[in-house]
Amino acid sequence: MENKVNIGLDVAGGDFAPGCNLEGAAMALSGFGDRLHLTLFGNEEVIREGLKSHNIPESSVTVVHAPEIIEMGDSPLKAFLSKPNSSIAVGFKYLKEGLIDGFASAGSTGAMFGGAVISLGGVVDNIRPCMMTYVPKPSGRDGIILDIGASADSKPENLYQFAVLGSTFAQLISNIDNPRVGLLNIGEEPEKGNELTKAAYKLMDGSTDFNFVGNVEGHDFFRDKADVYVCNGFTGNVIVKYSESWYQLCRKFGMNNEFLERFNFENQGGSPVLGVNGSVVIGHGISNGKAIKNMIRLTMNVVENKLSQRIKEALSRNDSSTHE
Amino acid sequence: MENKVNIGLDVAGGDFAPGCNLEGAAMALSGFGDRLHLTLFGNEEVIREGLKSHNIPESSVTVVHAPEIIEMGDSPLKAFLSKPNSSIAVGFKYLKEGLIDGFASAGSTGAMFGGAVISLGGVVDNIRPCMMTYVPKPSGRDGIILDIGASADSKPENLYQFAVLGSTFAQLISNIDNPRVGLLNIGEEPEKGNELTKAAYKLMDGSTDFNFVGNVEGHDFFRDKADVYVCNGFTGNVIVKYSESWYQLCRKFGMNNEFLERFNFENQGGSPVLGVNGSVVIGHGISNGKAIKNMIRLTMNVVENKLSQRIKEALSRNDSSTHE
Repeated sequence: MENKVNIGLDVAGGDFAPGCNLEGAAMALSGFGDRLHLTLFGNEEVIREGLKSHNIPESSVTVVHAPEIIEMGDSPLKAFLSKPNSSIAVGFKYLKEGLIDGFASAGSTGAMFGGAVISLGGVVDNIRPCMMTYVPKPSGRDGIILDIGASADSKPENLYQFAVLGSTFAQLISNIDNPRVGLLNIGEEPEKGNELTKAAYKLMDGSTDFNFVGNVEGHDFFRDKADVYVCNGFTGNVIVKYSESWYQLCRKFGMNNEFLERFNFENQGGSPVLGVNGSVVIGHGISNGKAIKNMIRLTMNVVENKLSQRIKEALSRNDSSTHE
Repeated sequence: MENKVNIGLDVAGGDFAPGCNLEGAAMALSGFGDRLHLTLFGNEEVIREGLKSHNIPESSVTVVHAPEIIEMGDSPLKAFLSKPNSSIAVGFKYLKEGLIDGFASAGSTGAMFGGAVISLGGVVDNIRPCMMTYVPKPSGRDGIILDIGASADSKPENLYQFAVLGSTFAQLISNIDNPRVGLLNIGEEPEKGNELTKAAYKLMDGSTDFNFVGNVEGHDFFRDKADVYVCNGFTGNVIVKYSESWYQLCRKFGMNNEFLERFNFENQGGSPVLGVNGSVVIGHGISNGKAIKNMIRLTMNVVENKLSQRIKEALSRNDSSTHE
């Protein structure tokens, strides 16, 4: 197992578990098994059966019996706390104790996010961990948008931190040099916006923690105006769900091209929880095998690039965490 | 002029004024001139020239000399107040004095919106006038979304009023019986959302002023879940500008169908200012002749259906205006 990244996979998470999860595990191991060891969390008997049917060699995986399941109807955080033998709770226990290098699950999102924050804690005081997704641009490069709903309400200093988190992600994971950070707003000029963005602009303007390029608007996602789009979680969540609708509708209307395909969540793998002490990725609830494979790949990427640690350093370097 | 609706048109408003404005005026008069008289505001000499070149009969129009121009670089409200002989300022003077039945302009949006609020006032106390646009749905019917940016910040009682405004518009102008009102949110359940939507949900739930169907999300715009999507102006503005990007991108990628065409602003005509004492429509700044024609048609529709008065009645009937 030396030189291999040990990724924990929740075999019970997502709408098509455990079948698609094990299918994705098999795809990941056959694709990049030379760098990957998987630790599988879930019902041991079910997993052992699945290993056989998916031709996964026992030597590539560690199986951890975690039979409790967090159901979609459960209150996510309550379920996380009240089901210590759930795959998610046990997975975070392993991550915290260093028995795995990263942890990935296709949900529930609420239990995963809450679990990450509770188990691992924020990288600095006053941090508001968040989630992101990709903003495909016709020019070729993908931008990212954050927060996409981890917080329903944000303060100006949260937006400032999102900028640091997003900028670090864009550099390390998207390999974008000196990523341009735009503040999502309803006008280009610095004085435009609501109370939140007007105050956030003042904090962000002139920052040396990231490359701030000013306000961007709803019609700037497809323009090459920024690499990181910073916004409050409410608006980000609406935008991301609306994007998915457009993607599905365009597919339904027969559109099929490389640009559109970059909206396909199956290719994206999910979102890391940004700002916690550990490598955690949350996939889409409707993940199929391919999506699970890419979620595992993203988690490896996050681990190998030490994203969490680099974010901690970036936030500690400056006084952004004390802006409250 | 009896039995005709007298619509004021700002000949100087928009990026392609005065040419496209007069082209649109000609199209409107040739299309539905039996019901329409136009009062044209702008530089009289320019307008008289244009009437000839566009074959507009002098008898179909009244020309009002208003030579000052509100430039795109001007601070909109300041320009409205400091240029009393601008086409917009004179247009509102005519509207307030009952010399025209409705007033339409392709901008500036800020001067038109501010001018409407200052000149005409709100239909009730504590009203926050707003703007809307259409939400085309694949099922056939168009929904509407409001506010789309007239206010940058909203209170729960503003969202309640937007629901009344939108519901009245959907009934009178879109001919939707008992329109379903959804609250744009980041979760389906009543307890989900940010501070604003959680409080607005409580106000809206059980209201007899409109048909509240609960929370709707970003992926519900294309589903037939609601006819009126109520949201804060910040998120609405981002959504609407993002929609335009998708429309343009889909066109660029060769998509061409009836559904997509409903996103074309040229067919929509613009947005009425909802909640002021008068019929005012603001068109898109890049309006061409067809868009101007449809802006005039929408203004006639708003006048003929007494939208402003019906909104006043709807808001006076209930105690929503005292929710502050």
